[in-house]
Amino acid sequence: MSNLLLKNIRPLGADATDLLIRNGVIAEIGRIKAVDGVTVEDGGNAILWPGLIDAHTHLDKTTWGMDWHENDREAVLRSRIDFERENRIGIGIDPHRQSMRHAIGLAAHGASHIRSHVDIDPTHGLRLVEGVQETREKLRGIIDIEIVAFPQSGLMVMPGTLELLDEALASGCEVLGGIDPCGIDRDPKGQLDALFALAVKHGVSVDIHLHEAGELGAFTMELIFERVRANGMQGKFAISHAFALGMNDHLRVGRLIDEIAELDIAILTTGAPSATVPSVKRLREAGIRVGAGCDGIRDTWGPWGQPDMIDRATVIGMRNGFRSDADLRLALEIVSQGGADVMRLEGYGVGCKADFTLLDGQTVAHAVVNRAPRPLVVKGGRVVARDGLCIVEMP
Amino acid sequence: MSNLLLKNIRPLGADATDLLIRNGVIAEIGRIKAVDGVTVEDGGNAILWPGLIDAHTHLDKTTWGMDWHENDREAVLRSRIDFERENRIGIGIDPHRQSMRHAIGLAAHGASHIRSHVDIDPTHGLRLVEGVQETREKLRGIIDIEIVAFPQSGLMVMPGTLELLDEALASGCEVLGGIDPCGIDRDPKGQLDALFALAVKHGVSVDIHLHEAGELGAFTMELIFERVRANGMQGKFAISHAFALGMNDHLRVGRLIDEIAELDIAILTTGAPSATVPSVKRLREAGIRVGAGCDGIRDTWGPWGQPDMIDRATVIGMRNGFRSDADLRLALEIVSQGGADVMRLEGYGVGCKADFTLLDGQTVAHAVVNRAPRPLVVKGGRVVARDGLCIVEMP
Ligand SMILES: [Zn+2]
Ligand SMILES: [Zn+2]
Repeated sequence: MSNLLLKNIRPLGADATDLLIRNGVIAEIGRIKAVDGVTVEDGGNAILWPGLIDAHTHLDKTTWGMDWHENDREAVLRSRIDFERENRIGIGIDPHRQSMRHAIGLAAHGASHIRSHVDIDPTHGLRLVEGVQETREKLRGIIDIEIVAFPQSGLMVMPGTLELLDEALASGCEVLGGIDPCGIDRDPKGQLDALFALAVKHGVSVDIHLHEAGELGAFTMELIFERVRANGMQGKFAISHAFALGMNDHLRVGRLIDEIAELDIAILTTGAPSATVPSVKRLREAGIRVGAGCDGIRDTWGPWGQPDMIDRATVIGMRNGFRSDADLRLALEIVSQGGADVMRLEGYGVGCKADFTLLDGQTVAHAVVNRAPRPLVVKGGRVVARDGLCIVEMP
Repeated sequence: MSNLLLKNIRPLGADATDLLIRNGVIAEIGRIKAVDGVTVEDGGNAILWPGLIDAHTHLDKTTWGMDWHENDREAVLRSRIDFERENRIGIGIDPHRQSMRHAIGLAAHGASHIRSHVDIDPTHGLRLVEGVQETREKLRGIIDIEIVAFPQSGLMVMPGTLELLDEALASGCEVLGGIDPCGIDRDPKGQLDALFALAVKHGVSVDIHLHEAGELGAFTMELIFERVRANGMQGKFAISHAFALGMNDHLRVGRLIDEIAELDIAILTTGAPSATVPSVKRLREAGIRVGAGCDGIRDTWGPWGQPDMIDRATVIGMRNGFRSDADLRLALEIVSQGGADVMRLEGYGVGCKADFTLLDGQTVAHAVVNRAPRPLVVKGGRVVARDGLCIVEMP
């Protein structure tokens, strides 16, 4: 763990000061003269912000850095899933190389932590997970990666997947995933009972993809609430996307939100511009933990996205109709502290572990809409990126 | 008008070739050896695309390049309008300096044409229009600017505005604007009758801001249809935003679209992520002219936006759920040919006037999601920007 004296930074946008890191931990904030044997960096009055967090992505899927992948297919969920499963290796989406590129890109743009869902299916077994695990090892000290064992192709409709998930959780995946128990599996009771049993067996939390919109998604949420309660998994469940919370029924959504708050279920949003997304403000007002992610970037599913959580903060902010400086700050909190809340990170924030990024902007709000490269990214007290470039080169 | 030999470009994404410009017009496309006395540029195999078009913006409003403008106000349309009118000069938003910055930014990112609404109200008279007209003169040969005389603060509720619009149209504004005849003026018959009479008097077309959503906007559209028909203004009316076309009533929207197509009314969209926007594909399938714009960027209304129509193509594409390469090409067409259709530009496109930009990407779709600076921008055969920087410096 490193020592570093960082001069002239504005913690969370406050007045300029200095910051001393000892053994990877913030030791002192205030005007500090040179300290013997400690390297000095000048922050140039940039804003100091805790490391950004991509709390919902798919490191095993991107084509970033590869030849352009032409997409002439229809945008049907089930077809996208099947096309990817059948063609990803042939296309050359090597899970280790591509997750390296993706994760290094995130680190270069100021991220300190990632929660990545990784596909598990009978075609690939644990091969994709192993590729991302290799990346996690190689990038230790650069960026932290948490892996969700994710049955992308379905659970009940893909025999053999349950056993693979069991194996994945035994071999180092921290979280159990799931997907559209109605829409993909056509058997909500089947999938949810299986997921909860497995989560209880391994003592892990669950993070489920729920694209199901409107009443269908609301129904699935109710099934989830029952099981969170029955299994005592309050505080150990997360719903990604939660498009049903974007439906146009204020009272119905309010009742769902009340239960989500009561059961301490976390919500992960991407701010998907073409979907019905939950209102970030309404969730926060109810006291719900809200994190955010880029989801897949430039993959066989679609062309959009950047490995950059500031870019994602703008997508979420625009989708949520944010305009004021306070709103922009909230968007930035969602892609930082929000992810830490969801992932239950210890020692996160300006005050303990020296994981942070500098942001270029006159104010916090300016830094959110400003697309300037991050001047400096620090992980565990060590400089890992400078002016948008990571010290680890993209493979 | 200039001569130029541009080598190694891919017109509209086709195979690489060369292009000879004589007197500002494309004279020849094909493999061409050096021509005596003609400057040669190498395009590096970039894609050649007609100049991008911001067909809906507000050059008089941006704070771009100024100190960050803090916004702690509520996002209510009427308050935003009043705050801006009362404070814009005090804040330092000089209409000439700021429209220079905005327009130069657009040119640097590959735009060749702008349609800008410019505020006209009793507080400022024609002062804001004059500032933008000065910019238009200074940037002649760099980027073309069309000005819409725009009663931002309302027409019926702001006595004196009608006379000012009359004066503006007499002194060089090409198009007449309008705004929410119900929402802002609370007198749809009054505003629309006045607008149509003024447009007929000056023989100009109309481009109205219509934020009114759902049935209210649909009602206003019906009033517009009646008057377009009665005044023979088919093909001379445009509706900007048209949020009512994003309402969740497929049949009702279909009937509105049928009338819009029949009356050859153009639609301008910004892809606003937090509003109900029209479906670009549905409009195009009905044969409607569809252009796009960034609308205001970083102004007292809100912090979002860039002076970059490729950025806007991504906002529109994401909002419309575009994913395939063909969809991305459509998004790019909307921010180029689409604007030319709305503005009725003559000689636009690869084949006549030498107004174009190079795009960096393996394919057209890649160039849309790729945020690389434009390698070269040419207006009337003259290089006006290179690698994201305009030959005219920002003031
Ligand atoms: Zn996902
Ligand atoms: Zn506008």
